[in-house]
Amino acid sequence: MSQLLYEGKAKKIYDTENPELLHVQYKDEATAFNGKKKATLPGKGRLNNLICSKLFEELKDHGIESHFVKRLTETDQLVKAVKIIPLEVVVRNVVAGSLSKRLGIEEGVKIKEPIIEWYYKNDELGDPMINDDHISMLSIATPEQLEDIRRQALSVNQVLIQLFDDIDITLVDFKLEFGTLTTTGKVVLADEISPDTCRLWDKTTQEKLDKDVFRRGLADLPQTYEKLLNRLEALQK
Amino acid sequence: MSQLLYEGKAKKIYDTENPELLHVQYKDEATAFNGKKKATLPGKGRLNNLICSKLFEELKDHGIESHFVKRLTETDQLVKAVKIIPLEVVVRNVVAGSLSKRLGIEEGVKIKEPIIEWYYKNDELGDPMINDDHISMLSIATPEQLEDIRRQALSVNQVLIQLFDDIDITLVDFKLEFGTLTTTGKVVLADEISPDTCRLWDKTTQEKLDKDVFRRGLADLPQTYEKLLNRLEALQK
Ligand SMILES: Nc1ncnc2c1ncn2[C@@H]1O[C@H](COP(=O)(O)OP(=O)(O)O)[C@@H](O)[C@H]1O
Ligand SMILES: Nc1ncnc2c1ncn2[C@@H]1O[C@H](COP(=O)(O)OP(=O)(O)O)[C@@H](O)[C@H]1O
Ligand SMILES: [Mg+2]
Ligand SMILES: [Mg+2]
Repeated sequence: MSQLLYEGKAKKIYDTENPELLHVQYKDEATAFNGKKKATLPGKGRLNNLICSKLFEELKDHGIESHFVKRLTETDQLVKAVKIIPLEVVVRNVVAGSLSKRLGIEEGVKIKEPIIEWYYKNDELGDPMINDDHISMLSIATPEQLEDIRRQALSVNQVLIQLFDDIDITLVDFKLEFGTLTTTGKVVLADEISPDTCRLWDKTTQEKLDKDVFRRGLADLPQTYEKLLNRLEALQK
Repeated sequence: MSQLLYEGKAKKIYDTENPELLHVQYKDEATAFNGKKKATLPGKGRLNNLICSKLFEELKDHGIESHFVKRLTETDQLVKAVKIIPLEVVVRNVVAGSLSKRLGIEEGVKIKEPIIEWYYKNDELGDPMINDDHISMLSIATPEQLEDIRRQALSVNQVLIQLFDDIDITLVDFKLEFGTLTTTGKVVLADEISPDTCRLWDKTTQEKLDKDVFRRGLADLPQTYEKLLNRLEALQK
């Protein structure tokens, strides 16, 4: 019998018979603004799982390893157990959201060289932005691990920019989490990559195909994610 | 006749006959919380000028150049003209103020390795914290200039920690500004170093000897700065 180890805002984590592997279940709950906006959206868990599984597989095909082992069901994945590094690693190609507010630059302005930002994954503190020195002080990661994370995040960005470009979508920005493998200590990409954690804009219509439709009340989230999944599946053929 | 080139919150900048030199006049005005709290405090300009001049002289004695040329009067300095790099460079040795809030660590906790933070000097945006990638995007400074600034800021920190320690004061944190010399483009320390821009705590009583007495309404600012000046002058002998 598998046991619930942890329930987060978007996923439940269960153990498996193998201590090196975990079972992730994607939930139908959506939250925004550090939990202040909430809803249950039937189908969301399935959509995020299908999209995320597809993206992790594509990354693997391009030589980028992650915690992803395989998709188990419509809502569930098998992943490698990691010790999550409490950093939200944000990669940006186009100005949007908090960066627009921080720098007073309007949303949609292209960024020449991708920007990487570190946020301390800590709900109580509201996930504050931090820098390399804060990370050292808090012993969140070593400078070598940070450099590794940065390099991996930029590789993920390159592959995903191309992938989304092929289905007429701009990869505006996204959030990654990394962890150290419980076996070897190696730093690997973990958590999820989904429309919950990316900003994705249709190149032709500028329509948003991500969680901003929920945050800003612009469109139905499951319908939006279904469109995205359909485009990603069309890519396969 | 010298002309007023710029009036900031704490100082007025005048030109001189020599285009490479400027004349800085320290004002009696105090502001806090991005200009929301304001007061005129007679004697503040003189105190900041005397303290700042002393500190720049001490730095020079320890091989650290700055824009400071000499003190002219009780309230005025002669400095080299620079193009200010719009960065507030914060160096921290002890947790206080915004860092305490950001990381949820109580004020007074010692930091092992000094922390450096970059803030975009922009009143309209409220001086947001930024990272190296934002600085590149905004063309605020080159990576080489940033490295130079970081190195200089750490040297200033080393000298000032020792100096204040000698008068039984903890240098908790401080803000620096740098600029490029209008002559050679070299990056030099500019602006001011004063109790307006430092947090200074008496080692024995923990009494604050800096602008926090004004920000938090704890004590009379000119009286507090006068105490600090007296200690610094005692050091000389
Ligand atoms: N491979 C993994 N091993 C262990 N924990 C993981 C792994 N992948 C993701 N996690 C963690 O699972 C938790 C549940 O995810 P989620 O519901 O998104 O949580 P949160 O509310 O923190 O965003 C998160 O803490 C996430 O970091
Ligand atoms: N050597 C210098 N050359 C040119 N400008 C300088 C120099 N030193 C300081 N400044 C600038 O002088 C201005 C006035 O100082 P201040 O009153 O502290 O302004 P602020 O309100 O921006 O803090 C600031 O913009 C500061 O960066
Ligand atoms: Mg999450
Ligand atoms: Mg100033």
